[in-house]
Amino acid sequence: MVDYNHIFSERAHGMKASEIRELLKLTQRPGIISFAGGLPNPEAFPTDTTRKIVNELLDEIPQKVLQYGSTEGVPELRGALVEHMHKRGMKIDKNQILITHGSQQALDLLSKVLLDPGDTIIVGSPTYLGATGAFRAFQARMETVPVGEEGMDMDELDKRLEELIKTGKKPKFIYSVPTFQNPSGVTISGKNRERLLEIAAKYDVLIVEDSPYSYLRYEGEPQPHLLSLDGEDRVVRMQTFSKILAPGFRIAWTVGPAQLIDKMVIAKQATDLCTNPFGQYVAYKYVSSGAIDEHIDYIKKLYNEKRLTMLEAMDEHFPPEAKWKKPLGGMFIWVTLPEYINTREMFEKALQCDVAYVVGDAFYVENEGYNTLRLNFSHSSEEEIKEGIKRLGVVIKQEIKEKKGKLTEAIITP
Amino acid sequence: MVDYNHIFSERAHGMKASEIRELLKLTQRPGIISFAGGLPNPEAFPTDTTRKIVNELLDEIPQKVLQYGSTEGVPELRGALVEHMHKRGMKIDKNQILITHGSQQALDLLSKVLLDPGDTIIVGSPTYLGATGAFRAFQARMETVPVGEEGMDMDELDKRLEELIKTGKKPKFIYSVPTFQNPSGVTISGKNRERLLEIAAKYDVLIVEDSPYSYLRYEGEPQPHLLSLDGEDRVVRMQTFSKILAPGFRIAWTVGPAQLIDKMVIAKQATDLCTNPFGQYVAYKYVSSGAIDEHIDYIKKLYNEKRLTMLEAMDEHFPPEAKWKKPLGGMFIWVTLPEYINTREMFEKALQCDVAYVVGDAFYVENEGYNTLRLNFSHSSEEEIKEGIKRLGVVIKQEIKEKKGKLTEAIITP
Repeated sequence: MVDYNHIFSERAHGMKASEIRELLKLTQRPGIISFAGGLPNPEAFPTDTTRKIVNELLDEIPQKVLQYGSTEGVPELRGALVEHMHKRGMKIDKNQILITHGSQQALDLLSKVLLDPGDTIIVGSPTYLGATGAFRAFQARMETVPVGEEGMDMDELDKRLEELIKTGKKPKFIYSVPTFQNPSGVTISGKNRERLLEIAAKYDVLIVEDSPYSYLRYEGEPQPHLLSLDGEDRVVRMQTFSKILAPGFRIAWTVGPAQLIDKMVIAKQATDLCTNPFGQYVAYKYVSSGAIDEHIDYIKKLYNEKRLTMLEAMDEHFPPEAKWKKPLGGMFIWVTLPEYINTREMFEKALQCDVAYVVGDAFYVENEGYNTLRLNFSHSSEEEIKEGIKRLGVVIKQEIKEKKGKLTEAIITP
Repeated sequence: MVDYNHIFSERAHGMKASEIRELLKLTQRPGIISFAGGLPNPEAFPTDTTRKIVNELLDEIPQKVLQYGSTEGVPELRGALVEHMHKRGMKIDKNQILITHGSQQALDLLSKVLLDPGDTIIVGSPTYLGATGAFRAFQARMETVPVGEEGMDMDELDKRLEELIKTGKKPKFIYSVPTFQNPSGVTISGKNRERLLEIAAKYDVLIVEDSPYSYLRYEGEPQPHLLSLDGEDRVVRMQTFSKILAPGFRIAWTVGPAQLIDKMVIAKQATDLCTNPFGQYVAYKYVSSGAIDEHIDYIKKLYNEKRLTMLEAMDEHFPPEAKWKKPLGGMFIWVTLPEYINTREMFEKALQCDVAYVVGDAFYVENEGYNTLRLNFSHSSEEEIKEGIKRLGVVIKQEIKEKKGKLTEAIITP
């Protein structure tokens, strides 16, 4: 029999089955209330609109929706997105848009055209784990900059970039989820957005603006998109239909400098030829008919209620040692527990009490964040949120009591 | 402004816009009869069946078809494919199947987990250009073995492998399209299939069996699949719904040794999370309802008529200097012209006469095949085939007359 261990590529040896994925499997047991996934709520899927659209498409243009499409994306969808973005203050041309199979594919293609093994990039700490997965597959060296209450620490970023360039490790790009970041929920302030552009210009590095949640703002004023602030072809921005239509079509779009998009198109040609035209035409009708705007309003109302329910339940059931910041948008609440708590150890106990979350260290490139956890509020029902948070409150209180006791013991009996 | 030339990865510098893609754009001018593409005929799309299926899906399981799915593929489709393949003599388990966005993505993922820059692989000469594109993106060194009337030359393959291993360049795999190869249309004989497995075992290399056309057999007896002959976990096989349902959903499946599939699943997780569940469920219903079998019969009838029409027209209009072998299946006829003809030069003249083909050298890794061309018979109507072949006959005769004249002149006047 063939021994594959001698055959895999170097990059493949570095690939490990996502431990988080394995943990997520445990949360699918019936009876468990899971705040672990990052899934939209099925209630938020516009099933009737989709049914209407697919029937129209199969009546009107079956030969287009069922055929291969061009690699950059079907022209109708790209055209509709240009207009859609113009309305939102982003003046772009059609040749600056690439349609991909989810933003995850955009991260893959971007890595493919930018990263050689050992190349340095900068990511937040914490940051979106799907992105670090994509970068790791191309053997990137990831440097981290702390993400605080106003997003990435700009002083630290400036300092780090200077050091890296001095030591010949100039990063290719800064990866950022500037609005309602996954996992922390924080948004970079307007002032810091401008500073981020200045710093990137000063050291001549690119900025990746991954923005799946920007439509899901429940309060506060929108901040300018990094793409809108860019005047130097320095920003590439990713958006997705997964959170505002449905993930089932895997349709996302990337906007960036034409020379970068061109190269990503060539890479995509060899990667999967084209994004599924059926899903692209559904997205096209969804945007061009205006159904998208109505539906975003509906989703925002739905998720905001869930967010407020979860925050209220947390206020009621979580002990004062648990800290969190109210997210103004997105799908997640990020919780920090005392340093003596390990949320990975606590995870088993949570499962025993039929409630689940994502362990926070999964979102760190380096070994940290063991006292943090991420809660998703979009997927569960109101009742599940109330009951699940109550259960989790019991688990957290119990864990604090136990660990604090041991800590006190350790201090008393040296 | 950012200068991207200094930022792209080494692999990206090697990526060039497909020249063929640019040529294909020229063939889309109205009035041109194009045999250039590799597209299925829209008549071959089961639009009514698809309409019925998507409405059922949106009524029955909207929360599944519109949601994210698991990376390996939705369990229903993988289950249906296990059964589908059992019926065709391939005994496989569910954990040996990975659903991808087209077979192109399977080639990408396979390259990702197997190829380090500079790794050697073996491909046919000629071979499918989408595959060499995928391998090139991972900086593979491609060694070629001639493809003759019975497929890859096995004596040459044996010799080449011995040489390569002696010089420390052991290939990772042999890439093969064993049945109705694109572009040549040839099928590896049963005897040579067994020999291929023996040779691969002798030198301990893998075999990639890319098989998009095996259902499209119009005459002759089916040959055993390489996967069925494999007893050593040595073969990975790719099949697609693009040619037997429609390309618009981008659904394909790969079957191989579980340890290889597992690694490809991990790679896919970082590449695009999952194949679009909407399309996967359409494919599932298409297979499990039996609609697939009926529809394959319909497509075979449709394409066979087109094949026979094209062959008849070629017999009538092509000069005796043009050679081709009647393909027993697939979508292409491969034509060899005298050595003094360059089909790339002739291409311009063909366009002037409103007919197009793919220049044959595109299917060669090395500089050869300049006197060959590929004709697609699946996409055009019967009338277009008759008229287009007539036009092309004129172009070829004219080109032969002109070039032969010059050749004679050169001989007479040294």
